Amino acid sequence: MAAEVDALVDTRGEALRERLDRVEARLRAIAAEAAPPLDRLAGGTIAAGGKRLRPLLVLLAAADPPADDRGLIRAAVAVELIHSATLVHDDVLDAAALRRGRPTVWATAGRDGAIATGDYLFARAFGELARNGRVDEVAVLSDASSSLAHGELLQREDAFDADVAIDRYLWRCELKTARLFEAACRLGALESGGPADALGLFGRRIGLAFQLLDDVLDVAGPVERTGKPRGTDLLDGTVTLPFILARERDPSLRDVRPATPAEAEAVCDRIAATGALDAARARALAIVAEAKAGLPWPDPALELVADGVVARYA
Amino acid sequence: MAAEVDALVDTRGEALRERLDRVEARLRAIAAEAAPPLDRLAGGTIAAGGKRLRPLLVLLAAADPPADDRGLIRAAVAVELIHSATLVHDDVLDAAALRRGRPTVWATAGRDGAIATGDYLFARAFGELARNGRVDEVAVLSDASSSLAHGELLQREDAFDADVAIDRYLWRCELKTARLFEAACRLGALESGGPADALGLFGRRIGLAFQLLDDVLDVAGPVERTGKPRGTDLLDGTVTLPFILARERDPSLRDVRPATPAEAEAVCDRIAATGALDAARARALAIVAEAKAGLPWPDPALELVADGVVARYA
Repeated sequence: MAAEVDALVDTRGEALRERLDRVEARLRAIAAEAAPPLDRLAGGTIAAGGKRLRPLLVLLAAADPPADDRGLIRAAVAVELIHSATLVHDDVLDAAALRRGRPTVWATAGRDGAIATGDYLFARAFGELARNGRVDEVAVLSDASSSLAHGELLQREDAFDADVAIDRYLWRCELKTARLFEAACRLGALESGGPADALGLFGRRIGLAFQLLDDVLDVAGPVERTGKPRGTDLLDGTVTLPFILARERDPSLRDVRPATPAEAEAVCDRIAATGALDAARARALAIVAEAKAGLPWPDPALELVADGVVARYA
Repeated sequence: MAAEVDALVDTRGEALRERLDRVEARLRAIAAEAAPPLDRLAGGTIAAGGKRLRPLLVLLAAADPPADDRGLIRAAVAVELIHSATLVHDDVLDAAALRRGRPTVWATAGRDGAIATGDYLFARAFGELARNGRVDEVAVLSDASSSLAHGELLQREDAFDADVAIDRYLWRCELKTARLFEAACRLGALESGGPADALGLFGRRIGLAFQLLDDVLDVAGPVERTGKPRGTDLLDGTVTLPFILARERDPSLRDVRPATPAEAEAVCDRIAATGALDAARARALAIVAEAKAGLPWPDPALELVADGVVARYA
């Protein structure tokens, strides 16, 4: 990401780096403002980092930020807080011990700590964004957050369902991932008076591609890159595009239900053998191309981010 | 509650009943707007009802509502949505099968369904309130929601702690309950241009008394009134004022840790025998008196609500 940010700064100037730093500082301040033990739990979640892809999209979607860019920073912070909140709640659902190589809030503070931490981050996200005084912005974030909840639930509903159709899968990805990417771009556009619909669509497409490629990676690995064993989705029962496509090509995969990591790895190999990974990758790349082509104007920085989403999986 | 509302309508007029009906209709509409299965889960939570005490406080704290009272309705709806969200999340923490005599979301749809339903209600609360276009109002709700998360976590931290001090207990009640009551009154005041600090303080005190009396009821019962066996808090390890006061009076209670409902009932009897219930009740009544005395003007409706909080436990 550091290298990516350097490239983005080349196109957008040092102001971008400075804004990213302010987003980071504000995220940490919000965690620190909580009373113990929430400060520690929220702080750990924030510090665990991640790519800050969503705040970056907020900042970049503001093609022409106003001189007073505090609203932009707040929007970027709010989006990342929502993202963090959902990660913390997801870890409860997944009973995940590690995220990004660190113990999760769930592992550290249990179900109770994780639910409360997520709720705190949710509440602060809306409080932060509301300071911009713009109803349209809070509506964008509220809609995206509702979608995240829907998407998460849909994923559970469809678990281990051999008949999940591609459309249903894409709809879930849209709710679970793409809508928050869309919100990020919309908020940036709103803050700089840009075309919110067009940039929102760019964000949605990038988010969709991001999720598709993430699902490919879960099957393709390698573990050195993903930091988790292959086939985690298979073990969780999360039916993803590679599996759906593979089942069409090799019906004997239909009733496969691996119970151990070793079995899951073996199923990953069988999925790869059908060519489903290449097909899923191609679909994601087409969506990224569509996203770039649909930009209201050629924007080297947003195009770089789009390419970066793909590059993670090259 | 129906009788209470009648009495309130006598002092405030039919407009109050009409507003309560609109709050109710909007709550149901918001649940219905969700995609399945969230609509069913959120709808069940909303339909399970409860006393709607918080929306009522919003409406009543607006002494002189503007002709266009839609903002007031939205504030009342938002507060109830936050309350519902926390109930749903609490049920996950408590693994509670029933609430208000109905199966909880947790029991119906599992941990996953309950976390997602709570998140949805949270998101919609802020989206609803943001439509008022007032930063100060969203800040009030965000602060209250952060407090709820803190309070819930504090309760878990202190579980089974024989040394919880009264101040710490009161602080937890403030975070867990009183702050949202305060927010309700503040929002009503803000919508009608009334004294938000004074009415907020009234709400905070009423909320504190409400929680104290709720904790008394858990020990005092009877089950026909509370709908749950006595001593639930004792079994959960939630250290409440009656228990703190009883341990001061009867040190042999210090290390008591009931493991079964029958044992918990027996401990309840021992707590009652110390006179701790009367002392806790007296403390709550003093807070209610303080709340009424601190009102910026004599307000029969708010006084009725204050008395109603006490009457539940008489």
